Amino acid sequence: MADGQSLPSWNDSAAKSAIVDFVARVTEQGGAEFVPPSGRIATFDNDGTLWCEQPLQTQFFFAFDRVRQLSAEDPTIGERQPFKAVLEHDYNTLFGLGKQALFELAFATHAGITDDEFEQAASGWLATARHPTFGRLFKQCTYRPQVELLAYLRENGFKTYIVSAGGVDFMRAVSEEAYGIPREQVIGSSVKLRYDLRDGRVSLAKLPEINSFSDREVKALNISLHIGRRPLLAFGNSDGDLAMMRYTKSGVGARLALLLHHDDAAREVAYDREFRLSPLSEALDKAEDYGITVVSMKRDWNLVF
Amino acid sequence: MADGQSLPSWNDSAAKSAIVDFVARVTEQGGAEFVPPSGRIATFDNDGTLWCEQPLQTQFFFAFDRVRQLSAEDPTIGERQPFKAVLEHDYNTLFGLGKQALFELAFATHAGITDDEFEQAASGWLATARHPTFGRLFKQCTYRPQVELLAYLRENGFKTYIVSAGGVDFMRAVSEEAYGIPREQVIGSSVKLRYDLRDGRVSLAKLPEINSFSDREVKALNISLHIGRRPLLAFGNSDGDLAMMRYTKSGVGARLALLLHHDDAAREVAYDREFRLSPLSEALDKAEDYGITVVSMKRDWNLVF
Repeated sequence: MADGQSLPSWNDSAAKSAIVDFVARVTEQGGAEFVPPSGRIATFDNDGTLWCEQPLQTQFFFAFDRVRQLSAEDPTIGERQPFKAVLEHDYNTLFGLGKQALFELAFATHAGITDDEFEQAASGWLATARHPTFGRLFKQCTYRPQVELLAYLRENGFKTYIVSAGGVDFMRAVSEEAYGIPREQVIGSSVKLRYDLRDGRVSLAKLPEINSFSDREVKALNISLHIGRRPLLAFGNSDGDLAMMRYTKSGVGARLALLLHHDDAAREVAYDREFRLSPLSEALDKAEDYGITVVSMKRDWNLVF
Repeated sequence: MADGQSLPSWNDSAAKSAIVDFVARVTEQGGAEFVPPSGRIATFDNDGTLWCEQPLQTQFFFAFDRVRQLSAEDPTIGERQPFKAVLEHDYNTLFGLGKQALFELAFATHAGITDDEFEQAASGWLATARHPTFGRLFKQCTYRPQVELLAYLRENGFKTYIVSAGGVDFMRAVSEEAYGIPREQVIGSSVKLRYDLRDGRVSLAKLPEINSFSDREVKALNISLHIGRRPLLAFGNSDGDLAMMRYTKSGVGARLALLLHHDDAAREVAYDREFRLSPLSEALDKAEDYGITVVSMKRDWNLVF
């Protein structure tokens, strides 16, 4: 099972060998590096690691549609920033806000609705919304080699998790269908909730206040809070994932940290340092020092979508 | 599998029938109330529901031993409250603090140590510490009928969770061995953590500040955060579990909420309203109104430990 036959979209290069060798070592019964299935935890960033994050993380398209919908109901919304920039497609202003402020904008557009209502809204949107340049549904902008890798790890007894700065409830609306990852194995940014008891029925309402912005060091802290185990394998694509990778690599025994480098302008988008929302710089420069395996989209994948 | 043969410590009374009937309905392929395995989430309180919480929740014995150990290293600790009360066995003062303050005291005794060090300390303590009156190891003070129920639910495709006010890391040190519940399916109170990078190695240090006190309404909020699904079944034993039960019962379709009533002075301890650390009053008085099934330890269990 660990032979990599189930990774057809991966070229037979060093990256694939690193994965297959690692899985063989930790699953070899009686081997020196054997880890029982309960300890086989693999954590994946989502945006830019499992699916496309260009030109913007998918959740922002969802939030921007929501801003347009709210502004149709109440035109004064468009007079205030950052909503004005959304309605005017003023991406320079939006990008200048940075990743956390943009996610806070996204979360603010759903304040007051219940978790059940959010689930309906997100699922409904994901059922039809299309990527602006690739033309396919956003939920089909997943990377084929990564979907294969998730399945391959599960075949080998791993429990696969998403650990992302994206909103946890947005990702949960698509994680099972897109990746085979159940809702409870998704960790992400979250807002505070309010417990509402009305007419004997309990609902949970989303508040416009961040509970956790799950980026950088917070990814490691959230892994400890939600999983309570240090991962064996972590996969990311930006400096926002570096803390998770170094936390993973600091565990005793065999550990694997992987970094996806978007270097394929022909099949996807080539970017790293200059992507203001999720720059990749330290993780790329120090990959060798930190023991991180770089995966080149161009060199290591024979298929992207 | 849903016939209840695997619940030998449960008497053939109404409580057992309610459980077995419920499981049969939600697992009957093609039945009107069928729920696919992914939706079969069962959440259990821990202290007083899965194991004994008298005369004090187990974690307090662990914390008090830690206070004694710290005071041997630094005798001035015993001059300050609440540590003074611990060292003097002044339980009236300690109980007067209430449940949250007592847990905060417990968490404070481990501030500064890493998650790995805490795991070692808790596991080491649990390996030998004995209950003061029952004489057996604390980790063997689990209720046999509940351990059977957890296994029975898992046989029927349920994912079983602990959702407790207890410290999440303390429970994780024992959950697999005591209940067959993996670490990542334990939700509890938590402290904030600090990401420490030293000499290229990452560790997470516990801070003396509460991140989440997982009692009452917060149990429902934490279920949403960690699991992202409303439970099908919830089991508790105090008013601290009522919000989780009502959240569960408010879901569409078949739901079951169970309340353990400690009414067996001969085999365990009889208590409810007067237990200052976890009173049971509203949940007992309103059980029928709220659709909660009361389980009597005396009537419904033929064996306790």
